[in-house]
Amino acid sequence: MRQRYKPWADDFLNEHQDLIIQNPAEHKGKWQKLFSKEQPLHLEIGTGKGQFIVGMAKQHPDINFIGMEVAKSIVVTAGEKMLEAELDNLLLIHADASHLLDYFETDEISTLYLNFSDPWPKNRHEKRRLTYSSFLKQYQEVLHSEGELIFKTDNRGLFEYSLCSFSAYGMLLKEVSLDLHKDEDPLNIMTEYEEKFSAKGQPIYRCKALFQK
Amino acid sequence: MRQRYKPWADDFLNEHQDLIIQNPAEHKGKWQKLFSKEQPLHLEIGTGKGQFIVGMAKQHPDINFIGMEVAKSIVVTAGEKMLEAELDNLLLIHADASHLLDYFETDEISTLYLNFSDPWPKNRHEKRRLTYSSFLKQYQEVLHSEGELIFKTDNRGLFEYSLCSFSAYGMLLKEVSLDLHKDEDPLNIMTEYEEKFSAKGQPIYRCKALFQK
Repeated sequence: MRQRYKPWADDFLNEHQDLIIQNPAEHKGKWQKLFSKEQPLHLEIGTGKGQFIVGMAKQHPDINFIGMEVAKSIVVTAGEKMLEAELDNLLLIHADASHLLDYFETDEISTLYLNFSDPWPKNRHEKRRLTYSSFLKQYQEVLHSEGELIFKTDNRGLFEYSLCSFSAYGMLLKEVSLDLHKDEDPLNIMTEYEEKFSAKGQPIYRCKALFQK
Repeated sequence: MRQRYKPWADDFLNEHQDLIIQNPAEHKGKWQKLFSKEQPLHLEIGTGKGQFIVGMAKQHPDINFIGMEVAKSIVVTAGEKMLEAELDNLLLIHADASHLLDYFETDEISTLYLNFSDPWPKNRHEKRRLTYSSFLKQYQEVLHSEGELIFKTDNRGLFEYSLCSFSAYGMLLKEVSLDLHKDEDPLNIMTEYEEKFSAKGQPIYRCKALFQK
């Protein structure tokens, strides 16, 4: 995602550090305390500009959501959307997904979303893909045993790779859609990318997979 | 596939019963004896009009091929193609895939192909799909431990279903293509259906999966 220099970003992050968490390791195992109600916790890794996670939080008041985004100039845009929506079931984390185990306790998450993750198409960058085995290992740890990984992308290569990566890791594929918008799931919340690419007629791929602990 | 009444079909089958096998159970465990050379044995279930299996047999003289087709009026068309190609590494079986274990010995097959199988889209017909678990159980038995199942279809619903069915059965996905013709596999042999549907711009799906014995 293109990042613009936003001189006001640091001020914005300082001002809203109760909602855009800068030090997630301090809340490991205690995320529920930051929400007004204790209820299932869903995490999106790579929240981008926040349309998905804000839409989900509105649609599901009975779930607590966390959106994690590493890029400062992007997480502030998601932050603006979150503030505008005035939700008590959504927080953002400004941090990198590679240290997930520092931020979340075993079994702390019920559902994990990956949406339109960077495809890293070159073979030599395989390890950077968020569906590479080293990431799956972290997801398995933080997701509780019935917890689903829900993965959505328009990138064919990444989706093909990810299906094989999930399989090699011993995950169970529960649901696959190879053209999500033709399936017309009324509960599907679109990301910014998804709106753009599906408007061009490109198929959107989605799967739900479980770890077998 | 549409079946036309072909009054000459019985005569044709009688005349060529050495190449279009009517009594496959008699050859269980002894298929190699019907070929001129002993070499890996690949089986296509639902051979249709035979373009794929005849093309494969021409492309791979170092493999023995068997195409199995239940519909009499269709297997004779495949038979005509096979005779015209004058191959010593191809046989057809006129029989039903539900009795695979009567026809093949454990580990007798190296690779199994399913191409454009009937999608049986209604839920109540799930058990008839050639990727339903009861069929997978038979494939697992006749395929040797390194043996691949290679499945190709234009039918999105069947492909989505089959990925989940393979996963639920504990199979390992080795390769997935969600638009085979964009991948330009130079060794891909097209079936009749494949030519027709890919010419319309529809994506062709393919996966390779292994049983984990």
